[in-house]
Amino acid sequence: MPVNLNLPSAMPVRGAVLTTLVAGLKSSGTADMVVAQLAETARTAAVFTQNAFCAAPVTIGKEHLLANKGHVRALLINSGNANAGTGQPGIDMARGHCQALAAALEIPEESVLPFSTGVIGQLLPDAIMRNGIEKAAQTIASAPESEISQWTDASRGIMTTDTQPKLTSQTVLINGQSVTITGMSKGAGMIQPNMATMLSYVFTDATIDVADLNTALHDAVDVSFNAITVDSDTSTNDACVLVATGVGEALDVSHAQWPDFMHALRRVCMDLAQAIIRDAEGATKFITVKVTGGKNTVECKQVGYSIANSPLVKTAMFASDANVGRLLMAIGKAGVDALDASKVTVSLGDVVAFSNAGIAEGYTEERGAAVLAKAEIDVIVDLARGDAAASIYTCDLSHDYVSINADYRS
Amino acid sequence: MPVNLNLPSAMPVRGAVLTTLVAGLKSSGTADMVVAQLAETARTAAVFTQNAFCAAPVTIGKEHLLANKGHVRALLINSGNANAGTGQPGIDMARGHCQALAAALEIPEESVLPFSTGVIGQLLPDAIMRNGIEKAAQTIASAPESEISQWTDASRGIMTTDTQPKLTSQTVLINGQSVTITGMSKGAGMIQPNMATMLSYVFTDATIDVADLNTALHDAVDVSFNAITVDSDTSTNDACVLVATGVGEALDVSHAQWPDFMHALRRVCMDLAQAIIRDAEGATKFITVKVTGGKNTVECKQVGYSIANSPLVKTAMFASDANVGRLLMAIGKAGVDALDASKVTVSLGDVVAFSNAGIAEGYTEERGAAVLAKAEIDVIVDLARGDAAASIYTCDLSHDYVSINADYRS
Repeated sequence: MPVNLNLPSAMPVRGAVLTTLVAGLKSSGTADMVVAQLAETARTAAVFTQNAFCAAPVTIGKEHLLANKGHVRALLINSGNANAGTGQPGIDMARGHCQALAAALEIPEESVLPFSTGVIGQLLPDAIMRNGIEKAAQTIASAPESEISQWTDASRGIMTTDTQPKLTSQTVLINGQSVTITGMSKGAGMIQPNMATMLSYVFTDATIDVADLNTALHDAVDVSFNAITVDSDTSTNDACVLVATGVGEALDVSHAQWPDFMHALRRVCMDLAQAIIRDAEGATKFITVKVTGGKNTVECKQVGYSIANSPLVKTAMFASDANVGRLLMAIGKAGVDALDASKVTVSLGDVVAFSNAGIAEGYTEERGAAVLAKAEIDVIVDLARGDAAASIYTCDLSHDYVSINADYRS
Repeated sequence: MPVNLNLPSAMPVRGAVLTTLVAGLKSSGTADMVVAQLAETARTAAVFTQNAFCAAPVTIGKEHLLANKGHVRALLINSGNANAGTGQPGIDMARGHCQALAAALEIPEESVLPFSTGVIGQLLPDAIMRNGIEKAAQTIASAPESEISQWTDASRGIMTTDTQPKLTSQTVLINGQSVTITGMSKGAGMIQPNMATMLSYVFTDATIDVADLNTALHDAVDVSFNAITVDSDTSTNDACVLVATGVGEALDVSHAQWPDFMHALRRVCMDLAQAIIRDAEGATKFITVKVTGGKNTVECKQVGYSIANSPLVKTAMFASDANVGRLLMAIGKAGVDALDASKVTVSLGDVVAFSNAGIAEGYTEERGAAVLAKAEIDVIVDLARGDAAASIYTCDLSHDYVSINADYRS
């Protein structure tokens, strides 16, 4: 059961046509292939996993993005198989499938970006993929633009262990015209993105050049997808893509309303990133770790992740056990240089639990437990050594996490 | 149920008298205080946790060890309460309890090292501690030396969530005389020691000066207590102590039989470190991650810990699921600089699972699963970029780990 997963509702984005189908990659027989066809005016930025064992589609996607300079015409996404750890045959396959889609849509091969998610270490079934690509190209040729069902179907088609699709929109007025930003994400485990996240696709109908798109994407990802963790594990297939279809208003970083656009983009990315945590494997609590008073955001994130990734903190949260000692342990092991532990303050929600080097005056375990009994928990740590701050979003560690991951492939 | 926890049996060490009692710190009513009285000839080395929130006894222990230059006369150990996160009152209490024991035993205050383990963030009950210390001092005054029951009782008295006491010995012939090395450890969770481990006490009746004792301790700890992890969490109270009581043969680093002594000492430390993993919270598998072909041992340990701490690897091990993809993911996220993933080989026991950038020829999931079905699993990773190697010892992540840590204080 997701924890309070209620996303603002989604709108279609002009300049993109999506199709979703059952190619036959998932034993469940549910949708497992999504193709997005982008207008000729579209420009695209993307960030990818830094895992050294990055998947074949990540390798090809980076190569194509470099070659096409952001002029992407199609996204080819499959779930059910990650095409990772598959060596040269996997690379050849990812390239071949891009070629097949490009031929069918009559666009350059390098204008296709491939994405795969699912089990690692197994070759994609080539015939099933090619058959699906053929069908998708036929469907998309006759498909109308701007149908919301295309977007809801696609958000389901990219799911693996997610229990809920994650799709949301924001609109912002630019030059008096409505600009739409719509994003979708998948991911529920193997989540501690590193410069990217699981698969996330954000589309806007604005017209933005590739350099500014890259700036916008990195800015938004930094506070959203790069601030979440389920289990400290970084996927081989992480990618986050931002497409500006270029059929709407023109925008650049010097535009007076760029901050409004960025605010809306950050909101979409933040909502999706938090949705991943709310739907994380086995999650029963949504936990925000706010670290303030750091010398820089790097050390704030370091402390935030140390708490958010501690199995002992996560199991205590699952039990609603106000075990302040485990929070101190996690802060203390974070490796912050010359941290003065006696100055640190730790609060659970608005209840100060630890200050002045000891349990805070007036703090009782009952007051702490009352905060932790809720489904939404704020853990606030003040390091009292500077002005930097950062928030990390995570969930608890429950029996269901173990069950889901012990049984994933069986 | 511990995984194949069978330690070589233990012998008492001359020059040390131990007493164990129920002071009343544990709600279970089991033994919770151990006092060790050491001969005047004894010399001691110790390593402590690097957690910034180190406990009051760690602070006082370091201070005393500096002041007494290794001339330690007594160890004062309590379980049931860690005296961590307790600020100045905790420091005052640790100091006061050392004073009380020193007065009762008529030894200098700074010759006492205090150790606490248990719940973090609660003040020690002062009267219960002082009452226990008084009783322990009386018992020890009339206690005979070299009784094995003192050692088995003590190994039980330091336990918290351990299901089994951990006590073992090795003997080695030095100058034709028998020298004994006996060690005990506690710890089952919050285990990724950093320059030390949970509480471990190793005694020998050899005569060794403080400098050589320190060399010996660091050497032995590096490959044993500093090579294990249950859950990536580093305790606030970790300490490992090596006492040479000085009533037996004299030894120093230039002695012809120093290598024999070190071999036996490493064996004691390795057996205890592995015993901690075998008795780890919820463990059903004992896993050795051997990393070879690294440029240096640091990067080998980095890869080893990345695998050993990955919740997705640990849950797959619990399920005996030969999910090679999760191993690749964990190697890839370890942060090894410029790792060439295409050269990495991964084996499960003697079954090669991944090589030449793809699933190994002849590998089948059935062959992998057969290895993982055993209680003792070797994961072997060859990085093929150098001659360094390191082994990390860990366990799987089971439902019982979650249960134990969700319920620890309830």
